[in-house]
Amino acid sequence: MKISVVRVPAASPSDTASLRAHIEEGTIHPSQVIAVLGKTEGNGCVNDFTRGYAVQTLRGFFAGLIGVEAADRISFIMSGGTEGVLAPHFTVISRSEAVGVPAAAGSKALAVGVAHTRRFLPEELGRSAQIAEVSAAVARAMAEARIEAASDVHFVQIKCPLLADADMADARARGADVAVDDTYKSMGYSRGASALGAAVALGEIRREDIGDEDVCQSWDKFSEVASTSAGSELAYCEVIVFGNSAQASGELYMSHGVMADAIDGKPLLAMLADNHGAEVVQVLAKAEADPTGLVRGRRHTMLNDSDINHTRHARAAVGAVLASIVGDPMIYVSGGAEHQGPAGGGPVAVIFRRTNA
Amino acid sequence: MKISVVRVPAASPSDTASLRAHIEEGTIHPSQVIAVLGKTEGNGCVNDFTRGYAVQTLRGFFAGLIGVEAADRISFIMSGGTEGVLAPHFTVISRSEAVGVPAAAGSKALAVGVAHTRRFLPEELGRSAQIAEVSAAVARAMAEARIEAASDVHFVQIKCPLLADADMADARARGADVAVDDTYKSMGYSRGASALGAAVALGEIRREDIGDEDVCQSWDKFSEVASTSAGSELAYCEVIVFGNSAQASGELYMSHGVMADAIDGKPLLAMLADNHGAEVVQVLAKAEADPTGLVRGRRHTMLNDSDINHTRHARAAVGAVLASIVGDPMIYVSGGAEHQGPAGGGPVAVIFRRTNA
Amino acid sequence: MKISVVRVPAASPSDTASLRAHIEEGTIHPSQVIAVLGKTEGNGCVNDFTRGYAVQTLRGFFAGLIGVEAADRISFIMSGGTEGVLAPHFTVISRSEAVGVPAAAGSKALAVGVAHTRRFLPEELGRSAQIAEVSAAVARAMAEARIEAASDVHFVQIKCPLLADADMADARARGADVAVDDTYKSMGYSRGASALGAAVALGEIRREDIGDEDVCQSWDKFSEVASTSAGSELAYCEVIVFGNSAQASGELYMSHGVMADAIDGKPLLAMLADNHGAEVVQVLAKAEADPTGLVRGRRHTMLNDSDINHTRHARAAVGAVLASIVGDPMIYVSGGAEHQGPAGGGPVAVIFRRTNA
Amino acid sequence: MKISVVRVPAASPSDTASLRAHIEEGTIHPSQVIAVLGKTEGNGCVNDFTRGYAVQTLRGFFAGLIGVEAADRISFIMSGGTEGVLAPHFTVISRSEAVGVPAAAGSKALAVGVAHTRRFLPEELGRSAQIAEVSAAVARAMAEARIEAASDVHFVQIKCPLLADADMADARARGADVAVDDTYKSMGYSRGASALGAAVALGEIRREDIGDEDVCQSWDKFSEVASTSAGSELAYCEVIVFGNSAQASGELYMSHGVMADAIDGKPLLAMLADNHGAEVVQVLAKAEADPTGLVRGRRHTMLNDSDINHTRHARAAVGAVLASIVGDPMIYVSGGAEHQGPAGGGPVAVIFRRTNA
Repeated sequence: MKISVVRVPAASPSDTASLRAHIEEGTIHPSQVIAVLGKTEGNGCVNDFTRGYAVQTLRGFFAGLIGVEAADRISFIMSGGTEGVLAPHFTVISRSEAVGVPAAAGSKALAVGVAHTRRFLPEELGRSAQIAEVSAAVARAMAEARIEAASDVHFVQIKCPLLADADMADARARGADVAVDDTYKSMGYSRGASALGAAVALGEIRREDIGDEDVCQSWDKFSEVASTSAGSELAYCEVIVFGNSAQASGELYMSHGVMADAIDGKPLLAMLADNHGAEVVQVLAKAEADPTGLVRGRRHTMLNDSDINHTRHARAAVGAVLASIVGDPMIYVSGGAEHQGPAGGGPVAVIFRRTNA
Repeated sequence: MKISVVRVPAASPSDTASLRAHIEEGTIHPSQVIAVLGKTEGNGCVNDFTRGYAVQTLRGFFAGLIGVEAADRISFIMSGGTEGVLAPHFTVISRSEAVGVPAAAGSKALAVGVAHTRRFLPEELGRSAQIAEVSAAVARAMAEARIEAASDVHFVQIKCPLLADADMADARARGADVAVDDTYKSMGYSRGASALGAAVALGEIRREDIGDEDVCQSWDKFSEVASTSAGSELAYCEVIVFGNSAQASGELYMSHGVMADAIDGKPLLAMLADNHGAEVVQVLAKAEADPTGLVRGRRHTMLNDSDINHTRHARAAVGAVLASIVGDPMIYVSGGAEHQGPAGGGPVAVIFRRTNA
Repeated sequence: MKISVVRVPAASPSDTASLRAHIEEGTIHPSQVIAVLGKTEGNGCVNDFTRGYAVQTLRGFFAGLIGVEAADRISFIMSGGTEGVLAPHFTVISRSEAVGVPAAAGSKALAVGVAHTRRFLPEELGRSAQIAEVSAAVARAMAEARIEAASDVHFVQIKCPLLADADMADARARGADVAVDDTYKSMGYSRGASALGAAVALGEIRREDIGDEDVCQSWDKFSEVASTSAGSELAYCEVIVFGNSAQASGELYMSHGVMADAIDGKPLLAMLADNHGAEVVQVLAKAEADPTGLVRGRRHTMLNDSDINHTRHARAAVGAVLASIVGDPMIYVSGGAEHQGPAGGGPVAVIFRRTNA
Repeated sequence: MKISVVRVPAASPSDTASLRAHIEEGTIHPSQVIAVLGKTEGNGCVNDFTRGYAVQTLRGFFAGLIGVEAADRISFIMSGGTEGVLAPHFTVISRSEAVGVPAAAGSKALAVGVAHTRRFLPEELGRSAQIAEVSAAVARAMAEARIEAASDVHFVQIKCPLLADADMADARARGADVAVDDTYKSMGYSRGASALGAAVALGEIRREDIGDEDVCQSWDKFSEVASTSAGSELAYCEVIVFGNSAQASGELYMSHGVMADAIDGKPLLAMLADNHGAEVVQVLAKAEADPTGLVRGRRHTMLNDSDINHTRHARAAVGAVLASIVGDPMIYVSGGAEHQGPAGGGPVAVIFRRTNA
């Protein structure tokens, strides 16, 4: 297996010009694309339709090239919100069977696997059922990626559902109660349960130590590599596992760190130092407003701002910190890091390219 | 002269608890306070009343301690907007005649001078008249601070008026036309003309090279040290000059750099390296959305966002970058950097405290 | 007793020019003022500082005229949010002992009474304790106003606290749990419990029929005349009861109706028809986004909008409907009508002036 | 010719469920559809992608039913912004050759014609060139609709371009200057010039009386029936003329009035009274924040609000007033009424259905 990762800028959620150019130049082969991870320029909250718009556009674009069925097999995961300096773009991930370029003995290369859960009932979201199903899907995606050890997993991107008004009404009609009766809050619960599912799959938490009551409560339980994103455009979870595998080849590989808070640049700086000479292909990170209301002991106003949602503030802040360090604002920073890294902090991963220097 | 600089957190625009505690502990002497530079948690745009609320609160607070007249002589300069990690706070600047602590021969210490212009007519704002008056006020403030060379000036904070609807109506009624007929845009013109005034005073631009038509147009003309902020609470400009003077004493001193863009952390990193061992007392900086629509060649969405004003995005981004570097979010980052540093970038200054290490 | 009601426009939260003019003209006597009900131009949500700014301004203004102690006895109730056409203003309510102008036999005139509860612990907010205390305060205010029958009460304005982060931390530190652990949501719970308190006092609900679990749940339990507003500037409830009393004199009197939804203009139209010839002195109403997500069977988007809070949408809509009917946008429309009128609707009251026509 | 008008609710910009149901029930025939006028739930300003998303969805939907070419001939005009009570929906307009149902002698029925201009250069937008081209297109659309007299035209819906950053850069590169160098403001200029074009076509203004300098300046020059809407999704103007024609048949017909300000319900009330017994099929109206800053002499805060754009406030207000009168929030109210009705007011039109009562 050989993974290729290409970032293409997007002039709008429906812009495929740069993607098309890459395909025409042969740097992206549509039939090899397994996932597209995008940052779109909506509010990243409940009524962000830029995510669905981009997915509709991309699915149609690929369907025109490789057919509807093949296009439907691609995972499109869009994260809304490009606050501050962040640049809207798509990260296109392709997978091919490597020919004649075996990995050097003992070395590992980037491998990516994809899986999805079954559809959830509204009352399952943000609870143990979601944790268990996501955990199983992460294991399947790891197997597909031929990643053997949990320690070789460096990023788990999960797109998960939210509870729209209709979902809550549906549950009520059946006499079922939901984890939380507010659409915006349900995004956090779904992200949180998905992250806990990844943590269970990767052995970061034992399954028996986690229950309904931990979701969005026990902030000390988290995954170092989960990145979850909620949206109204699906009723199940889509999982993409990124890691290093001895069975993969190519010049790409991955690493990760954990930011302790929104201005913690050290993990990324350390990865750059440790991988001196390698090229940064993409940075993937999560951002959140510290639930204590403090960053380094100073009061922040993100949680009390009724004009701008706190996830928007957090993406602007973390995005700028990381962009400043790598010198590039076209990176993937997603908001709402419930159980993704410690409270107020979050995972940060880097896809590197080995250079012959 | 000896300058003291104390930062106090504010739990709201009307919170004086921490300020009061400092006074009770003797670290701030009300009668020595010459200026308070604040970050308040409003939107920093037209209808941001947190600035006026803080000024009303602080003026009343000091009036209760030192009398109305003395309180009226304090410059209160509030900059709205604590997006992202930025922490609401007040920077309290006091000046005393130093007793028995002469500056070491050849060394300079922080000096601060204050001045203000006459009131402006609406049609003068954003034009040559404002440039000229501000230039003269900066010169007066330098003299008051006993700063001899322009190269010793490291930050010029200016609070300037905007054109409210009533101002524009007033001008029209007298047959006069204004520089720009939009309140939000007038903030930029007033900030820009003020910055150009500082640039003229400091010899960064020759007076004969600048005219009405340059304001918010000739982005290559700027001051490296101006920081200007517009608000509806005054009709003249208030100027505070910060710099180093051989006639000042004390352990504080200042330095500055110029950020090339919103994620340019190098100038601040360089100052920290050059002043290794010194303590960072406060960081003062300006932020703006790059008018080209690009940061490092990547598209940003700040200027096209009709939900969040671009100054808010820019403060969140620049504030986080600088806070990350100094490890403290309670810094002064103000938005709208027209003619304050290069387009898309801005000045960054640091007040250091010499340590005996 | 004789009540006078004067509306004064406000050019900003700190504008007292029109108020001062009225005092100079003798239409408002500062020492007779018992309450000021204001609409200020903030977001009406958590970080709306225009309310506190106006209160600080008005209290200082009156203190300068009648002394600090007397000014402290005035109830200042500010409701944030003048979306759409609504005009920022203050409604100044004065009370005097009527001299020589007895009410005509059998007729009643406007009477106003004021009371407040004790301070609440965080864990009492949004629960039975708040309901009981408010109920008692409403009864005291009725007695002060000399209003005999509950049916003569036409508007009960209550200002109530919210749960700030610090309040929730305080409760947690004492091992107490709060009704809801989200500041914005706590505003709704506090408004709801206050309204239920009024309903109990006025016999609209029996005390034994209401408990903790009804607050923000049992939408069929409500007061037809309660108008409650939450803010961070107080820790107790302030209650102002408006109604008609046989012991009051003067040309003012009151009436009320109940809007079934946000576009229900009929109750106001009916009051205008029934009181044909009388002058409308002020309209007082509540607005809310229908929690079902529908208005007249049509989907509204207020509850899913992550850019603009639903209370802001609702004020804009209801404010415009009522302003259109009376031909005046300087009316009091407050958002968040939990248990104030039926779900999605709200109370609307009118202060009329009898004319001799 | 016979026109049919069907409103279908939209659960999101990509929801075609109700549209599909109508087609399956035979109440809409895809091949007869000439235009879809939609209200989508974005911010209605620069970065509102719900308009493009809906157009992409609808074009794909119809292409699947009648082929790409036929779908491309349908005019899709989306207006963003469903503030307050307004309900997202599509108004589907179909045209068929009437068979056996001639209009009664002397009576007229609803007729609709469609046309579009050539593409504009950036420097032509908001100026005489746009006025002239739109004027010609309105005349063509009238002819197509077989509407003979200008007085029979009751609504002219125009979708027009805006100046994106790239457009302005393009003009600058060619040495051309644009009417206004701000994207958000360019929307107003394009809407204004389009409306003036309609006014010229309908004889409301003489062509020789209008020039570049009148656009967004001479507010006394306006069309009573123009409704224009700007978006980034096209570079030319699309024009739909609605009116009554003696050559049309069917039970639909139209009328219009002009609101003097945002709370002027009288024109709609008068139309309902004049057409007592007829059914209201759809209301079409424009909304704007009064540029004087006043409504009925009272200050509004729409123009100074840096959190919510004034067009959003205005739609919420006018939408609620009109919805209240007709008892239905699923109406078409579009923002930004430059030269569309008097300043601060706007056109309001009603499509009625004759009933046999």
